Amino acid sequence: MSAVPQAVRAYLEANRQRHLEALKALLRIPSIANVNDGACERAAQWCRDHLAAIGFAAEVVQAGGKPNVIAERIVDPTRPTVLVYGHYDVQPPDPLGPWRSDPFEPTVRDGRLYARGANDDKGQLMAQLCALEAWIAAAGELPCNVKVFVEGEEEIGSPHIEPFLAAHAHRLSADTVVISDSEFFAPGVPSITYALRGLAYFEITLHGPAADIHSGIHGGAVRNPVNALARLVAGMHDDTGRVMIPGFYDDVVPLMDEERDAWETLPFDEAAYAWSLGVEGLSGGEAGYSPLERRWARPTLDCNGIVGGYIEAGSKTIIPASAHVKVSCRLVARQDPRRIIDGVRAYVAANVPPGIRHEIAVHAEARPVLVPRQAPSVQAGVAALREAFGGEPVLIRCGASVPITEQFQRLLQVDPVLMGFGLPDDNLHSPNEKFDLGQFYNGAVAAAAFLPHFAEIHANRRG
Amino acid sequence: MSAVPQAVRAYLEANRQRHLEALKALLRIPSIANVNDGACERAAQWCRDHLAAIGFAAEVVQAGGKPNVIAERIVDPTRPTVLVYGHYDVQPPDPLGPWRSDPFEPTVRDGRLYARGANDDKGQLMAQLCALEAWIAAAGELPCNVKVFVEGEEEIGSPHIEPFLAAHAHRLSADTVVISDSEFFAPGVPSITYALRGLAYFEITLHGPAADIHSGIHGGAVRNPVNALARLVAGMHDDTGRVMIPGFYDDVVPLMDEERDAWETLPFDEAAYAWSLGVEGLSGGEAGYSPLERRWARPTLDCNGIVGGYIEAGSKTIIPASAHVKVSCRLVARQDPRRIIDGVRAYVAANVPPGIRHEIAVHAEARPVLVPRQAPSVQAGVAALREAFGGEPVLIRCGASVPITEQFQRLLQVDPVLMGFGLPDDNLHSPNEKFDLGQFYNGAVAAAAFLPHFAEIHANRRG
Repeated sequence: MSAVPQAVRAYLEANRQRHLEALKALLRIPSIANVNDGACERAAQWCRDHLAAIGFAAEVVQAGGKPNVIAERIVDPTRPTVLVYGHYDVQPPDPLGPWRSDPFEPTVRDGRLYARGANDDKGQLMAQLCALEAWIAAAGELPCNVKVFVEGEEEIGSPHIEPFLAAHAHRLSADTVVISDSEFFAPGVPSITYALRGLAYFEITLHGPAADIHSGIHGGAVRNPVNALARLVAGMHDDTGRVMIPGFYDDVVPLMDEERDAWETLPFDEAAYAWSLGVEGLSGGEAGYSPLERRWARPTLDCNGIVGGYIEAGSKTIIPASAHVKVSCRLVARQDPRRIIDGVRAYVAANVPPGIRHEIAVHAEARPVLVPRQAPSVQAGVAALREAFGGEPVLIRCGASVPITEQFQRLLQVDPVLMGFGLPDDNLHSPNEKFDLGQFYNGAVAAAAFLPHFAEIHANRRG
Repeated sequence: MSAVPQAVRAYLEANRQRHLEALKALLRIPSIANVNDGACERAAQWCRDHLAAIGFAAEVVQAGGKPNVIAERIVDPTRPTVLVYGHYDVQPPDPLGPWRSDPFEPTVRDGRLYARGANDDKGQLMAQLCALEAWIAAAGELPCNVKVFVEGEEEIGSPHIEPFLAAHAHRLSADTVVISDSEFFAPGVPSITYALRGLAYFEITLHGPAADIHSGIHGGAVRNPVNALARLVAGMHDDTGRVMIPGFYDDVVPLMDEERDAWETLPFDEAAYAWSLGVEGLSGGEAGYSPLERRWARPTLDCNGIVGGYIEAGSKTIIPASAHVKVSCRLVARQDPRRIIDGVRAYVAANVPPGIRHEIAVHAEARPVLVPRQAPSVQAGVAALREAFGGEPVLIRCGASVPITEQFQRLLQVDPVLMGFGLPDDNLHSPNEKFDLGQFYNGAVAAAAFLPHFAEIHANRRG
């Protein structure tokens, strides 16, 4: 059963070229969040004007850094409300050398649109806006209330977003948030992402002698902080890859059998994946879990950087004064980054040997997200993708952190859904970023289908 | 029984001021081996002229880098020959700020001579040359044949010395080499150093993904080379501080009970030593050995530097592409650096996990030195120090490497002796380097006493 009226589908089809031109106009604005040349302000203004033109009450709202755009069209206060999220800022285009066309002069080749932001996230955002326009223009009205929130600092870690969401929680309140900033598991495999990992990022410093000292004259008498750090880090895993920080797994929501079964059917080629990363094989993770399970549903502990002593070319015979390691744990529901850091503090205090002083600094914390697969937003996303793309959509997780997802969940008290239209080879954050036009056009259909599907499921659950 | 004729002693006493002025003249030449301003050539010429003036056939000999000086005075080919070694090059004076007087304008304060090289090694070399002069001038002749070898690149690791020694082995041939480039264990404790540690210095690189990759998207699936390196390094020791490289201890000459007993009587204040290095206590070395034993007579494995991944301020969420560690093993007789490196290669090959590639580079190798304490050179050194300084000399080892000692032993087939006149607070390689004038004057007496003592013990052993 189609939830998108034939007129809306026809409108989207008839206006493809115009919608592509609109996207190209937005892509020509080099809106890089950490560049202060007015481009972000122009992109925000462009989004506001576009939203106003298609029928929304839209406003540019200052947020402490680059401005945000908030828009809404309230059809009927008794109907559910969907908040559409996207971001107009893009990654810097460097390195420029490998680009086959100007990153800010969008170019179509072989049915793909090449430009910085073509996928991430201007293209995906525009698919959503085309859907909203089509409903209003071709069906006369939206099937439910819609709010739109376009951010301008996503690519630099959204430094102002948490207080902004808290301050504007009422204005942004909704029954779900749909985030189109993710991708298909594989071409032809429409995907809803229902979980993201969290993060606990800390740095451990070990201090030995007051200064670097001669390793010949003193070696053997004094504890070496680099050797001590290696021992400390090595002890963070057991031989099976399990993390040995006290309490590390206490709050982990176990992977469900249904999830494992479903993921086993995914078209995942382990050898091809390993080849793409330049490794001989996938090993070293927690025993008893497949690579996908380890990336998506199991917590990790990885060193991100280590340094101590003499690191230039050649040799210097010293016992270093200190050693430093940066470590990040990816967390899964319902691990709490604060508790993990507490466990790290306890582990380090218990395992730093005599003669060595230690310090721990916390660099970042992010909570994991796990949206129930039965949530109306997830089910509506599945129905919308099925309707727009054909084929059976899959439910997947993602190992990375998209902190705004958890912030929406916590501050707006909703189950957000990640319904993205990208493909794995879209070169996000890299030269020659692209967006398949088929994904763009069908993505707009999926965005259009999401609204009635969500309204219906939401009403049924309540009823 | 005094081996130094009264006339020789009286000559040394009467000429102290003139000898001090001669040393000052040499100290005013800023002969830094890695500076090409002609100073080293002038210092070499000064040494040649001085040796010629006191009665030696002396020559400046080019060596590929800074020139060496070779001199000899053959009294009687049937008598034994002593080779005196020293170096005219000095460390750079930086940092200049803390110097209380110009490093190249020697200044006496409180009975100490302050200048770069005052101890290391111009002062100690000059003590030897004064002794030779005194024998010839006051006794009419040396008590045995003497050769002198003055090097000009000691402070930069003697890069040209091994081929030079090999090429001039006949010209330098002797029955022992006396090296005055070491120090007393403590003030008032004259010391002969009869062993030095060797060195095996290598660098291990582990390669993981072809580039740094996202620790969220990929973390858990791929082995992390920094974590793997920590594990590899941690496994190089067991919990008792024993080195776990295969075969590491196979060739170690055990510490003798007499040595342990002798060292226990040395005035070593463990707490004061720890305080001087800025550590809370001495721990972490091999179990079952005292700190002195660990520094002097036991091999070690110390990381000198480690680096991998993101090492700037703040955080970056990557699985690094590679990780590197520099490791040096201090070796004791009769460990062979080549065999140790072979053991490291075997250990690494056996313990690098799947999914990680490794490389090993060797940066330095030096063989350890252990001169029998009964060797004529050692016994002559003890007798000479006793005669010159009073008090009972001690036999000590040193944890560092002085590679020329082993090169003399191997290439000239002799048992060298390290008879030095420095004190532990002489600030070698640091600002305000000094040499106690008492050590200088008594050092010359010790150098004078060494020759007849050695000649006698050598003759007795042969007879």
